Amino acid sequence: MIIQVKHHLGEYPVYIGADLLANPQTWLSHIKGRQVMMISNQSIAANFLPLLHHHFKHLQCDQFVLADGESSKNWQNLQQIWDALISQGHRRDTTLVAIGGGVVTDITGFAAACYLRGVNYISIPTSLLAQVDAAIGGKTAINHPRGKNLIGAFHQPQAVIIDTHSLRSLPERHFRAGLAEIIKAALIQDQIFFHFLENNSAAILARDEKILTQIIYRACQIKAHIVMQDERENQQRALLNFGHTFGHAIECVFDFKDYLHGEAVAIGMVLAARLSLTETGLTVAEFDRIVALLDKLTLPCHLPPTIDSEKLLQAIYQDKKNSHQGLNFILLTKIGQSIIKSIQPEILKPLALPSPS
Amino acid sequence: MIIQVKHHLGEYPVYIGADLLANPQTWLSHIKGRQVMMISNQSIAANFLPLLHHHFKHLQCDQFVLADGESSKNWQNLQQIWDALISQGHRRDTTLVAIGGGVVTDITGFAAACYLRGVNYISIPTSLLAQVDAAIGGKTAINHPRGKNLIGAFHQPQAVIIDTHSLRSLPERHFRAGLAEIIKAALIQDQIFFHFLENNSAAILARDEKILTQIIYRACQIKAHIVMQDERENQQRALLNFGHTFGHAIECVFDFKDYLHGEAVAIGMVLAARLSLTETGLTVAEFDRIVALLDKLTLPCHLPPTIDSEKLLQAIYQDKKNSHQGLNFILLTKIGQSIIKSIQPEILKPLALPSPS
Repeated sequence: MIIQVKHHLGEYPVYIGADLLANPQTWLSHIKGRQVMMISNQSIAANFLPLLHHHFKHLQCDQFVLADGESSKNWQNLQQIWDALISQGHRRDTTLVAIGGGVVTDITGFAAACYLRGVNYISIPTSLLAQVDAAIGGKTAINHPRGKNLIGAFHQPQAVIIDTHSLRSLPERHFRAGLAEIIKAALIQDQIFFHFLENNSAAILARDEKILTQIIYRACQIKAHIVMQDERENQQRALLNFGHTFGHAIECVFDFKDYLHGEAVAIGMVLAARLSLTETGLTVAEFDRIVALLDKLTLPCHLPPTIDSEKLLQAIYQDKKNSHQGLNFILLTKIGQSIIKSIQPEILKPLALPSPS
Repeated sequence: MIIQVKHHLGEYPVYIGADLLANPQTWLSHIKGRQVMMISNQSIAANFLPLLHHHFKHLQCDQFVLADGESSKNWQNLQQIWDALISQGHRRDTTLVAIGGGVVTDITGFAAACYLRGVNYISIPTSLLAQVDAAIGGKTAINHPRGKNLIGAFHQPQAVIIDTHSLRSLPERHFRAGLAEIIKAALIQDQIFFHFLENNSAAILARDEKILTQIIYRACQIKAHIVMQDERENQQRALLNFGHTFGHAIECVFDFKDYLHGEAVAIGMVLAARLSLTETGLTVAEFDRIVALLDKLTLPCHLPPTIDSEKLLQAIYQDKKNSHQGLNFILLTKIGQSIIKSIQPEILKPLALPSPS
């Protein structure tokens, strides 16, 4: 299956299917020059690089392997990637190939954005989260000690290759966390898709490859549709942040350690849905369906009893201050329909209270 | 005078005139948010920042001052600019304001390109070279120990403000070096402009402000016209590199110490013109006019007797290798008309010989 994503300088395909990496004839043509630099991380590299090396044997093929984890999305690694490109003589027609989760696709995209003022890159996201989120839309970045993704660029890939086989080896907790962004896509834009997720939760958790391909395809389609209308995130693209203000604040309060991004977003979506009850007319029945689906897919739905409410509120205000949009939140008018709404700070206070233990 | 430069995301004005900085009403509207970060270098800052600070007194106005010289266009400074923006709470609607030569406008543009994935910047070039070259076209970059401008981005300013008053304090040697890029603009595209430069060389050297405004305007117009047709330098924009392959090689051989960029380009243009005699039919009379004009404007026209020809040729091949275009050169078919032509390496050898002392 292919989704074509248009942007202001051209367009690129997102290929979705089983075993795409073993069959490169569909996507190898997106490498234009005679050089590639594969960028991956330690736990992924052994699984994928030998196969890709084989596909790229007619090219100058170099590689750069990052340590696992979010902390690899840093300055030092970015510089080392550029140093490697320069010392190995990569020219303006080289292609960087990212193979890994969001950390790898984000730093690779940013390295490509600024090397010789922009070279091509191909994104091969191997985690569910990266497949339905990081790989589409051209957002690239590294982290700064003071915050995530503060330094980055918009730089579109030549192609995105989502091989559902790569999910087989994904640890269970990471797999489930990725589902949060799929549920988000349904919540903000597609009621029927939400219904589909409700009806197929068992198959999803069993990683039925046919169902997975379908839901990844639909989530990517929704994201692609939104980013095509607002490439630089001036307006509508903000809808993709549903649950994310609360989610980021939760990640922040726990120092990015206790919760995976998708887990924090799951709780964040419940909080945003709760806010939608009073602010935008979401019904209690719909709210209950949202919590039930998250629960069925074994995602967390409540703030932990130990949370420091004051710290959480501060983190929310900080996030909003950085985004210079006042206290605008993405809320649901119903399942499958979202809007941006300005919220008075006081209204947030009861939401930040921990769940009774 | 205003030149409007269109690009794929919008357009921006280039204001050219005397005393524009003292009269900000024409350009102050290009600052959209309530924050600015002025970036300059030591020898420039005292002359301009107090005045700008006064204009920006209704805004949060921070500043960052670089040490003088090309070596400031580095990693450490880029990171420090970002650290300052973050620690001083600059948001997505902040504006960076570059006041200085090409070093300052290049690093500021790049800092703006990647801070929060892109914020606005305004370019106030104060050297002649930056006014007619670096400030237009959206090329931003820093240097890498292995080469100039290897890391960068295309990022267009909100406005460019060229105040010809700022040239009054420009050291003589830097002023003349800037003239080389103006002569280049005439050579590649405008015979009548070349003639104008020939007829007004005395007024130019006397820094007659009316004449200066005219020639800066025309040089900017030529550059703007070319970059609008080829924003990302895939084809025609290469014409702006006339004299630059040789020029870069000369800078390189002398370790960027003995020659200013414009001086090296002046010699490079003579070498490219000499190549044009045999390769593209430039006449000897035209060649002599080119050398005569450079000489009248007191720019160097010959390789120094001490040059190492072998090193120079190696630097030329290296430059071409990096640009992945084979041995393509920009040559003149006549004064005011340039083309891209592929050249056999052997033909270059006699050109690289030093002038007899």
